[in-house]
Amino acid sequence: MPRSGRLRADAARNRTALLRAVEELLAHHHPAQISMDLVATTAGVGKGTVFHRFGSRDGLMLALVQERAHDLGVAIADGPPPLGPGAPPRARLLAFLSAVVDLVSRNKGLLAALGPAIAAPSDQGPREAHPVYRTWHGHIAGLAGQERPDLDTDMLAHVLLASVHSEPILEALARGEGERLDRTLRDLVTALLPDGAASHTKAESRHP
Amino acid sequence: MPRSGRLRADAARNRTALLRAVEELLAHHHPAQISMDLVATTAGVGKGTVFHRFGSRDGLMLALVQERAHDLGVAIADGPPPLGPGAPPRARLLAFLSAVVDLVSRNKGLLAALGPAIAAPSDQGPREAHPVYRTWHGHIAGLAGQERPDLDTDMLAHVLLASVHSEPILEALARGEGERLDRTLRDLVTALLPDGAASHTKAESRHP
Repeated sequence: MPRSGRLRADAARNRTALLRAVEELLAHHHPAQISMDLVATTAGVGKGTVFHRFGSRDGLMLALVQERAHDLGVAIADGPPPLGPGAPPRARLLAFLSAVVDLVSRNKGLLAALGPAIAAPSDQGPREAHPVYRTWHGHIAGLAGQERPDLDTDMLAHVLLASVHSEPILEALARGEGERLDRTLRDLVTALLPDGAASHTKAESRHP
Repeated sequence: MPRSGRLRADAARNRTALLRAVEELLAHHHPAQISMDLVATTAGVGKGTVFHRFGSRDGLMLALVQERAHDLGVAIADGPPPLGPGAPPRARLLAFLSAVVDLVSRNKGLLAALGPAIAAPSDQGPREAHPVYRTWHGHIAGLAGQERPDLDTDMLAHVLLASVHSEPILEALARGEGERLDRTLRDLVTALLPDGAASHTKAESRHP
């Protein structure tokens, strides 16, 4: 392997180690408690490397959530059903909401801590402008719209996603109660999108 | 009227005028744009009076939301149905959610701006510790539980209330789209708590 290729491989390995270290630390610490020093020590790399690659703690947190969100994006685009294509829209939606709850639970407080960073620069624009939020929102609205085109699925997707930005709910997730949120979202979605009832719904329950 | 009574009456009138002025200003301005000077001028009272009574802009905003929340609390405890007692739980819940959406819409961005103030002192405790959040949450959970005691209505209430703390939704409310949120919450609640189906639900859909 030429020298530049070895350097790239080292850089990729460091990046992976650093993101993994952050995720391990997030399982037990609030983001505010996680210093760059602690991340460097946990990952076994130099502190200078952390700063060089990510600039700041916010940069590191953002990279982590983008990586996990990217993995989830790949899973819904090309992965096996029910998360990926091939399953009915309602089953895909339930699998996706479970995956979001799991992602947010494993990165406790991360999305909340990133609130300002996720918002558009200098608060000029909406939070939905962030690609991760926009992708999740569009996926939920799209799947729900396939089952119930009569609903305001754009607003519905905002309402369902609001739950993973709610302080009391993030505190419940931090107490390990992600399953409660998952079940409640499942109750709401299965009530609203009855199994196999799409044609009935379209014919009889359309909004006036 | 004795002098002290006149003073108390003046103080009450000033307080009402100040809170009304803030609410008028909130209809067209973001909370960050509303200075104590502007409130005093709009209410026609001296700036010193505003500081004397409310201490800071956050104090003023908090007093406003507490007053509106107090009015809503009186309405659900003693007012006419469907908001007050006497209507079926589902109808009361729908009326309450409409009232919350209306309150938040009329005070655009107020709850969001109050986020830190609403949280417990120095972020030691959960947002639900605030009496307004706790009252709203308890009312929703209580009514939903009367229809569907099989559900996790504690988490359900958090999920429904999360919507009025979501940035994209608050932006929709600021664009005058409160009716969209109201309809979407109504769609979710009516799907989950079918009209007159409480006994059926309890018998057949209980969680294992």
